[in-house]
Amino acid sequence: MTEPLQPKEIAVIGAGVIGSAWAARWLLKGCDVRLYDPADAAEQTVSEVLENARYGWERLGIAPKSEGNLEHVETISEAVQQADLVQESGPEDLALKKTILSQIEEFADSSVLIASSTSGLLPSKLQDEMIHPERLVVAHPFNPVYLIPMVEVVGGRQTSPKSISRAMYYYTYCGMKPLQVRVEIDAFIADRLLEAVWREALWLIEDEIATTEEIDDVIRFGFGLRWAQMGLFENYRIAGGQGGMEHFIRQFGPSLDWPWSKLTETPPMTEELVKRITQQSDAQSGHYSIRELERIRDTNLVDMLLALEKNAWGAGLTISELRNKI
Amino acid sequence: MTEPLQPKEIAVIGAGVIGSAWAARWLLKGCDVRLYDPADAAEQTVSEVLENARYGWERLGIAPKSEGNLEHVETISEAVQQADLVQESGPEDLALKKTILSQIEEFADSSVLIASSTSGLLPSKLQDEMIHPERLVVAHPFNPVYLIPMVEVVGGRQTSPKSISRAMYYYTYCGMKPLQVRVEIDAFIADRLLEAVWREALWLIEDEIATTEEIDDVIRFGFGLRWAQMGLFENYRIAGGQGGMEHFIRQFGPSLDWPWSKLTETPPMTEELVKRITQQSDAQSGHYSIRELERIRDTNLVDMLLALEKNAWGAGLTISELRNKI
Repeated sequence: MTEPLQPKEIAVIGAGVIGSAWAARWLLKGCDVRLYDPADAAEQTVSEVLENARYGWERLGIAPKSEGNLEHVETISEAVQQADLVQESGPEDLALKKTILSQIEEFADSSVLIASSTSGLLPSKLQDEMIHPERLVVAHPFNPVYLIPMVEVVGGRQTSPKSISRAMYYYTYCGMKPLQVRVEIDAFIADRLLEAVWREALWLIEDEIATTEEIDDVIRFGFGLRWAQMGLFENYRIAGGQGGMEHFIRQFGPSLDWPWSKLTETPPMTEELVKRITQQSDAQSGHYSIRELERIRDTNLVDMLLALEKNAWGAGLTISELRNKI
Repeated sequence: MTEPLQPKEIAVIGAGVIGSAWAARWLLKGCDVRLYDPADAAEQTVSEVLENARYGWERLGIAPKSEGNLEHVETISEAVQQADLVQESGPEDLALKKTILSQIEEFADSSVLIASSTSGLLPSKLQDEMIHPERLVVAHPFNPVYLIPMVEVVGGRQTSPKSISRAMYYYTYCGMKPLQVRVEIDAFIADRLLEAVWREALWLIEDEIATTEEIDDVIRFGFGLRWAQMGLFENYRIAGGQGGMEHFIRQFGPSLDWPWSKLTETPPMTEELVKRITQQSDAQSGHYSIRELERIRDTNLVDMLLALEKNAWGAGLTISELRNKI
């Protein structure tokens, strides 16, 4: 098939942490963005996130010659009427998202691609009352969206193959690494893995085995360093030595039946557990503001991405592609 | 209490991927290492791993003026008799490890610290037939041990506080970030988290939702980039926006009850599943030898560690400390 035209204007519906960062990424890629969010705080959030994003792209050396134009609008109608892509980034609530989608459809041309940022709701459910359900995809990104390349692209039962390939093209165009999730499941791929870790981490805190800081340290001084460049399987392939993956699986498969795997229920989210996690997190990170943490995170992300780019590996390659197209 | 003297000689029992990398780390730190492994392949493995480690430390700019002396010995007796620390790195089998520990005790001075590299066996079980159980700790490292700073230090019921603090001192001395796991549980902290991801990943493959490469891509282009520098909780604190961790927990706590969390049984490790994983891994990484993958991994790790060091953050700080002591 022929490649779709590159998008000129993007509508972002909902300007929380995710929606704002979508807006920032598209603006830095030179596209115009119309943004709708009924909350008073939205303009402030967008301006802070955009500043973070500019800092990141500047440090990466991929800041654009000229940014796209940002317009805050008062209605969904104004946001979507000239858009090539509508990125729905509202609250994680199926009924609410369906209402927003129906409002988008009311004003958007039937040819417009509509993507939902949901981190786990099924596209088939999101689209089941749409007039043109074939143009709905899920495009699930990762915080901070302006720096993390991954976006999971998921179609529902009624999504057309053309919409999927158009989404893959658009997200590649804005410097991301879209992954087409071929089978529609709750939580897709990434949040399946993240939920599993989250569940286990909550137990470790509930049972007073470890604090939030200890868990974070085990990750960032340990396997997190591996996962920034190779995933679970490629690392285990190496761990298998010359026997590779088959050796590894045969060697460590049996330990899956050890008692390590028992704690799979979710601990009840009591007030006490909420309080414990909050207090531990304050003790760990409370000496930084959220803003300072964002800046630290982004500086580290940028410099690690540059390191990976220098070695022509993984997420560094997506930066190279962006750089080659400035 | 007074700090223990720094170790001069280390005994490593078992020279697989982990034992060899322990030897390499200590040699590069200037300590002498006596290494015992009955397998014919051991010398070859050690020499390859040591070469990798030298490459890494060289690239980090922390190569020592002079390495310690490495001696392959024929008996456990020779290995341990002058050691300050014995690092047991045999196969992951309780009975076998207990046999090795009793042989170590037969020849090592009662004052010698004995550490097991087990990734999940309980120190209380390892020590329950030892003559001097008070000096047994678990010190669980992460592949590649010569570059990843984290090591989990776990005491058993009979381990003395002095042995714990001695272990913490020794591993800090060799440039690591030891974490004292305060409560003894199967699999400690890291492998609890890793098992959870592993279980979920195996289901994704068993159910033909995703391939090994797709899962790895979701990690290394996505949340793996976050985890190399901040852990689960610090990242979620940021995701909570100005409301921080409490807001995040209250917002996302409920989704734990969504169907995302259901797949917690382990898929049966059938021949078919082993074959599928092996084939997918070959398709993903088979165009590199294990040796090449190790070099790619280590180059990336080094350059990301340098990036973190430049920003005086996380695992970069452990490199600074090593550098200041060359």
